[in-house]
Parts: sequence; structure tokens; C-alpha cells
Amino acid sequence: MNQPENHLGLLVREKDRLSRFSLSGAGIFFDFSRQRLNSETLDLLGQLAEQKDLPSGFKAMVSGEKVNTTENRAALHTAMRSFSHQPIVVNGLDVMPEIQKVRNQIYEFSKSIRNGDIKGSTGKPFKYVVVIGIGGSYLGTQFVSSALEAFADKGIRILFLANVDVHNFGSVVSQIDPESTLWIIISKSYTTPETSANENQAAEFMISRGLEFSKHFVTVTSKGSPGDDPSNPVLATFHMFNFVGGRYSVSSAVGGVPLSLYLGYERFEEFLKGAEEMDMHILSAPIQENLPVMAALISVWNNNFLGYETQAIIPYASPLSKLAPHVQQLNMESNGKLVTKEGEIIDYPSGVIVFGEPGTNAQHSFFQLAHQGRPFPIDFIGVVNPQHDAYQAKSKGVTNHQELWANLISQPMALAMGKDSEDKAKYFPGNRPSSTLLLENLTPRNIGRLLSFYEAKTVFEALIWGINPFDQFGVELGKILASDIRAEMAIKNENPSHPFDSVDPISRHYLEVLFSGKIE
Amino acid sequence: MNQPENHLGLLVREKDRLSRFSLSGAGIFFDFSRQRLNSETLDLLGQLAEQKDLPSGFKAMVSGEKVNTTENRAALHTAMRSFSHQPIVVNGLDVMPEIQKVRNQIYEFSKSIRNGDIKGSTGKPFKYVVVIGIGGSYLGTQFVSSALEAFADKGIRILFLANVDVHNFGSVVSQIDPESTLWIIISKSYTTPETSANENQAAEFMISRGLEFSKHFVTVTSKGSPGDDPSNPVLATFHMFNFVGGRYSVSSAVGGVPLSLYLGYERFEEFLKGAEEMDMHILSAPIQENLPVMAALISVWNNNFLGYETQAIIPYASPLSKLAPHVQQLNMESNGKLVTKEGEIIDYPSGVIVFGEPGTNAQHSFFQLAHQGRPFPIDFIGVVNPQHDAYQAKSKGVTNHQELWANLISQPMALAMGKDSEDKAKYFPGNRPSSTLLLENLTPRNIGRLLSFYEAKTVFEALIWGINPFDQFGVELGKILASDIRAEMAIKNENPSHPFDSVDPISRHYLEVLFSGKIE
Repeated sequence: MNQPENHLGLLVREKDRLSRFSLSGAGIFFDFSRQRLNSETLDLLGQLAEQKDLPSGFKAMVSGEKVNTTENRAALHTAMRSFSHQPIVVNGLDVMPEIQKVRNQIYEFSKSIRNGDIKGSTGKPFKYVVVIGIGGSYLGTQFVSSALEAFADKGIRILFLANVDVHNFGSVVSQIDPESTLWIIISKSYTTPETSANENQAAEFMISRGLEFSKHFVTVTSKGSPGDDPSNPVLATFHMFNFVGGRYSVSSAVGGVPLSLYLGYERFEEFLKGAEEMDMHILSAPIQENLPVMAALISVWNNNFLGYETQAIIPYASPLSKLAPHVQQLNMESNGKLVTKEGEIIDYPSGVIVFGEPGTNAQHSFFQLAHQGRPFPIDFIGVVNPQHDAYQAKSKGVTNHQELWANLISQPMALAMGKDSEDKAKYFPGNRPSSTLLLENLTPRNIGRLLSFYEAKTVFEALIWGINPFDQFGVELGKILASDIRAEMAIKNENPSHPFDSVDPISRHYLEVLFSGKIE
Repeated sequence: MNQPENHLGLLVREKDRLSRFSLSGAGIFFDFSRQRLNSETLDLLGQLAEQKDLPSGFKAMVSGEKVNTTENRAALHTAMRSFSHQPIVVNGLDVMPEIQKVRNQIYEFSKSIRNGDIKGSTGKPFKYVVVIGIGGSYLGTQFVSSALEAFADKGIRILFLANVDVHNFGSVVSQIDPESTLWIIISKSYTTPETSANENQAAEFMISRGLEFSKHFVTVTSKGSPGDDPSNPVLATFHMFNFVGGRYSVSSAVGGVPLSLYLGYERFEEFLKGAEEMDMHILSAPIQENLPVMAALISVWNNNFLGYETQAIIPYASPLSKLAPHVQQLNMESNGKLVTKEGEIIDYPSGVIVFGEPGTNAQHSFFQLAHQGRPFPIDFIGVVNPQHDAYQAKSKGVTNHQELWANLISQPMALAMGKDSEDKAKYFPGNRPSSTLLLENLTPRNIGRLLSFYEAKTVFEALIWGINPFDQFGVELGKILASDIRAEMAIKNENPSHPFDSVDPISRHYLEVLFSGKIE
């Protein structure tokens, strides 16, 4: 592929290039005509997919096999949006009745909150929903809620309190009316330090204002966790399942509770049905017509064969601005791994670094480098019909939405084609790969489809690489060290003369700076 | 450096490691003890700095030489915050009097708006400031305003309208009261399509509500541009200079007008003086004690010698959440270049891909990959004293701020040291480099120092690589193609039967999808 005859500037001129290098499925158009692929590459990637038996790997996951081998668990985010009434058996038990029960509970609860049947402890209806959760407990929900803001009940605001940084807490409480605030604490284990710290802060804040904890707090957590303790009553508890990991949990109660409060349960269900549609497409479409399979193959091609280490996600739609942070976690935490499923160390750097900002903003930020510096593959994402049909003032003969699309159409082509120039400062090498995905509009259904597309792409990449995309042992070492440092701080809080003698000299310096309040 | 004896797990145990591999200057503590450097590396990098004569290159810039060679311009962002009363001569003219004049104008104008002397066309004082600008016209201001939110006049909100996406416009206007809204249009050339389109949209929106354009719009633009046209009067016009590029323009009227309205001119000036302090440090400190010089040398070491292609910025402070997007533009648009200043093509991929999210959020997002997948260098940033001293509830014996610091202290060490394990899924290779920067608190002065630090680091990298960090010809090709596509759309808007015959088949497909409203 590195010969001049395979330069994208020539490939895109091939007859029927677009129809041969694009797919449609489950409402998404996926154009990889500007990827550095020819027909031969496509055939070879198809062979790779068959050799790795991707369809069987996905079916095993969907049917409840314990594909999360290191933790001996199933990975059943797809079951969370199954409406097929087919049983899914884990450890000899059909899990669907429990899943349906949680869905019903979310339906009833969100209805009662939204119609004012359930009120705060001073009798005010709820107008603010604050999600306390970090990582997978909020990134997906943040993406979906911002994508669907246009569908939100204007009477309810949603805020996210993820970071333990007290600035974040201060900013959230400055925006709410405590009496009409519902806090949703989301943590599978209910032992996440950041989430516990923020819950404590919030509880103290509410109680100090004379409000009842048990009427303003809801938990989303595993059955039997410290957040599911009848001796510490809350307004409601919704169960998470150990077979759904944080970064795949938007379809579960993690997304379900806040999104149903914000958008209404019906819209959340529409979102789930969109995700299910993509799941069905994946299960039924042959490899060469399967959107996430092809996307994963292209990703592996770009990463392992062409050597690109990063992947940008550039949606030409402001409501999708939180897609990149979500996929950043989804993909990097899933596939930034050191060992194969067989426990063998991978001897090359694994995982792709995902980043992105909306277009055209990104064009005015880092696209200089995309065009003339270090190349990286890009997913461009377009939405055919905007949510706002007001504001139709034209500039240069086009609407703002058309201006956006003029750029969405031009950038992939400019990156692919390049341009020669005598003045080398104005020379564009081209041959820079990208895909373009289109959604017809920003409905709950289409957001569900898009979410499932990126989830499945991530899983297929892992199947090709032979790694487990469902564990995350890489975050453990930092937690252990933080626990030691925290213990030192707690001692110092009680005993100001504590000398930090047992701490390594570099960490000790930071402890001393923190407690002195001065950097020197 | 790739021998086992140079593994960071050993290097960090060296005697006096921290004091030998850290610096303080202009209020910033810069710790590179967890970078993959030994004393020999440090000496060699110092020699590189001398060989490239970095101090002279910086002095040339500061003194007004035309260091932006391709555009035959000076690059004088440092003059924007000079309070030394020293003349700076460009084309035979001292530019300082003009700079001082704009500063005075900002002072007077922001005072009159903030104290209510200048009101909107229906007599209401201004409560909303909307910045219309894209790329460098808003990213720096967004960073500084969110970092200093705690200092803001609670009576004035600031919003940014960058993207031409009409969703962005719809979201902004849903948050303002038009009668008390001041729009600031920022564009050096005043021909940026996104900014023009948003200005048109805003003007139509205001006029349709019976409000006077000339009493609600302010421009920040070059002298004599279409935005500085007395025949189209606005409330005020503030001049930008051709020797300050967008991504370096926070210290100019680009940042000055919105930040003075939001924070008060005094705080903007304090911010400028912090930036000036760092500039003075840079001009006076020897190479081995010069913070941005050392930071740039380490960046080049990581990139060109150790082969890291990306750089993460992880502030453990929510108010710094917009630092990464600002530095992403600043650094990638400056140094993602193809040619040297001598016009020779660089035959390896240039520029570093910058990304980041605040900690601890990032730990729960992509740090799995940082610990066990593809390694990348990280700038950790800590703030010793938080802005909020309320909310002191403790969890596990520590405050939220201490919990944050327990993580800030632990992560660089975990990345550096690693940890062996029989179970390979729990093995941490370590040897993953990072720096830690500390600010004593989030004051305007410290934010100015931090801004100048990253600006200068970027310039020093360019001086080492021998490239021009002040032009951006790489964004031109996309603009040309977009202009052609826009023209096709404008024709189609007038003549619905226009067939797009002259457009390449792939782009044509997208035009047809857009005009049909359907993806198939």
C-alpha cells in the first residue's frame, strides 16, 4: 500500500470507488472510500475476519458466554437492550426477567418524578438531576444526554459530578436549587473513592440545609453493595449486573435512570431499540457488509499495518461533542492491554489513542497538523438534518448547516488528495486516511445505533487482537499507591507533626507542599 | 536510555533525584524527575539548546524581528503583556503606544459596561457576553475564563459561539436574554466564514427582536478590516495586530475584551503581568534553569529520541479543564509543519498530538492504556490550594482536595515504577514518563504564568526543529475546496434542478444526501 499508485489521490478517482468502499446498515452510512485500502486489502481483511471468526466471537458474547475470562464473567451489554423475549442464560439462569424488572422500575420511577408524584423533602418537584459517578458511570450518559438535549424536558436539568476536585462540587451546587435536586449515585462496587467522597459532600450539603437524605438520593449499584443497604434508606435503588462493565453500561440503569428522568422513559427505550437494531445488523450481516466489523478491520489495518497510533473522532454536529470523550474511554480502556486472552505479553505497544473535537472547530485548532504534520486517521461524522430548523439566515448564499457540510465534504477530500506546490510551505502531501459516517438526524434511535456501532467496533478490534476488552487491571496499581498516600494524609490530619518518614522522597515533597500550602 | 539500568523505577530512586530534576521559576514548580532522563541526557540536551541558540531565538522574537518568515511578520504576543515601557520597534515604528492605547480602550469600555454606564438598546445593563470566534479567537479565552470563573462578576455570564453548526447557535440563544446581551465578534481578517455566518445569524436574531445592531455588537479585528468599517457602526472596535497570531492572542484584545468584561480589567492586567513574569524568567534564566526551555528539550527528547508521538495534559483541577484544548491548538497548529524555515521538506512526521482531560477523571477513562497499553508522556498539573475552601467533609480521613492530591502524587509514580506480577494481566511495565507542574493557587497571575509557559515551550520546540511556529498554511487547502462546494450549494439553493455535474463523484453523493435530507 505504500507505492505511489496506492496514493489516496489516485484511489478516490477509481470507478465506483464510493459504492465499493461504503456500507449502509441500521440507519448509518459508513464511507471508507478515503481509507488507504484497495480491493486486495479489502479481501485480505475479510480473510482476517474469517480466520479470527469474528461472527462467532460476537455471538458468544451476546449469548452470555463468559467472554470476560480474567474475571470469569459474561459481557452482556447487548442484553440490556434486547426486546426479543429470548432467554439469555448465565450460570444456568435466564437474566432477562431481572433486566426487564429494572427497566420497569426505571419506567415507574421516572414517570413519578417527572409528573411530580414524587417530590423532595420540602414538597417541591424535582428540577435538577445530579449524577455522581466517574468514568463509565457518566461518560456514556453525558454523551447521550448532550446529543439529545433537544428532546429534554425543559423543566429538568442534568448535571454531572465526576471529579473529586471540590471545584467541580462547588460549580455544581452553585447551579442547583437543593430543595428540588435529586442526586443519583452511580457505582457498581459502591467503593469508588471519588464517588464516595462526592456523595459525602453532597449528603452533608443537603442535610445542612434541613433536607432529608432518603428523599433526595437514589443509587445505581450492584445488588448487596454498600449502596444497596436497607439500613441506609434512599429514595430508590436500581441494580447493575456484574456482566455489564462501566464503559458499556449506558444501556443499563447507569444510563437508564438519568436519561429517563431527563428525556422520559419512552425516549430512553427508543434509544435502546436503536442500539438493538445495530446489534441485530451485526448478528445478521455478512462480514463484508457488517459496519462495525469493517470499521474494526480498518482500525487494525491503520494501526498495525500502516502504523498510525492515534484516531481522531470529529463530529460535524455540536450535540455530538461528547462522543469523543466517551469513545476515548470505551476504546482505550478496553483495548489498551498488555496481554492476550491466553496470558501472553504482547510485544508491541497496543491500543490506539482516541481524541477529538467537533468540526469545524477542529479545523481551526489542530487540523494544520492533520494536513501537513504527523498524519492520523479520522472518523468524520455528519448529521443530514439539524435539530434546529430555525435560524435560516444565509451567508455567502448558504445556511449555517450548509456551511458546516461544505467543510464536512471538503476536509476528507483535501486530506486524501493533497496538493502540490512550488512553495514547499504550501505543499500538501495528501494520502491521509479518513472515514465518514452519516446519521439522518439526531433522534434517540440514531444515537442508540451510533453508540452500539462504537461498542461493537471496540469488541471486534479486541477479537482480532486476541485480548480481553472487558477487564481493566491497569488502573489498580495507581489505586493501591493512592490508598497508601491517603492513609499518610489522614494521619497528618490527626497529627500535624507526622513526618511522612515512610514515603519515598519525591512523593514526600508533594505531601509537604500540600500541607504547607506553598510550592517552595 | 533503553537499557534496564535506565528504567524509571531505578532512576527515581537516585539520590537527590527530585532536586536535580526539577526547577522553580515565575511561580511554577516544574518536576521532570519522572522523565526518562539521566544526568548525561540532561547535559546533552543542554548542549542541543546551546547549539540551537535558543536564548537568541527567543530574544529575536521578543524584540520584534520578523521571525514569522513565510509571512514576513514579527511575532509579538509578548509585547501585549509588556509593562516595561521599553520601545519595541517593527518596521521602524515603536508598537508599544498603540498596544497601550488598546489596553486603555479595553479598560474604559469594560468599566463602562460593568458599571452600567453603557446599556443595551432597550436600556438594560449587559448580563451576557457572547464571543463569536473560532480557533485562536476563543480557545485561549475559554481556557482563562473557565480557570478564573471564581473571580467572575456573578452578574455577567460568558458564552462562546465558535462552531458554524446551528445547534451551537440555538444552544447559545436559549441561554441569553437578548436585551442584555453583548456580542463580541472576533476575527483578525473578518472574513472567517464560520464567524461571518454566526454574526449574520446573531444580527438577524437581535434585529428581529427590535434591538439595535450598533448597540449590541463589538468587534475585535485588524485595523481597516470589514469589521472596522465606520459605515457599519458597532458599539466599539478594538484592534488586533498582524504580529500576533490567533493561537498566541489571549494577551491581546482577543482575550482582553471578553476577559475584562467577565473578570474586570484589573484581573486581566494581573493575568498579563503573570505572563510577563514568565517572559522575564525566560529572558533571564540560564538554559538549565529555564522552565520552558527545559520543557521543550524534554518534549523533543520524548518525540524524536524516544519515539512518543502524543502528549497528554492532565490537570488535577477542574477549572483547568480547558487547558488541554487550548494547548492542543497552540502546539499542534504551531508545530505540525512540513518544512523547515529554509523551505526544506522534513522527511519524518512532525508535531506531537496533544490531548487531555482533567484528573482523576482521566484515570477512570483512558489511564488503563497509559499503564498497560501504548505509553505516552503526560504533563500532570496540580494546584496546591483550591479556590473553594468550603465543602470540607472528609471521606476516609481526607478532604476531597486531599483525595485529589493522593491521586496526583500516586499516578506519576505508578507509571514510572510499574510492578511485577506472576499473573501477567496484573503486570505493569512502568518506565512511563511524566512531568508534574505545580501552581500555588488559581489566581489570574498564575494562569498568566502557565499560559506563557506553554506558549514559550511551543516556540522553543519550533526553534529546535528549525520550523516556523507562526504560520498555518496547512489549513488553506480545505478552505479552497469548501469554497467550491459552498458555491455549488448556493447555486442549488437558487436553482433546485442544478445537477452538481462538475463535482467529483464522492463529494457529489454528499451534496445529494444533504439536499434530499435522506442518507439513501
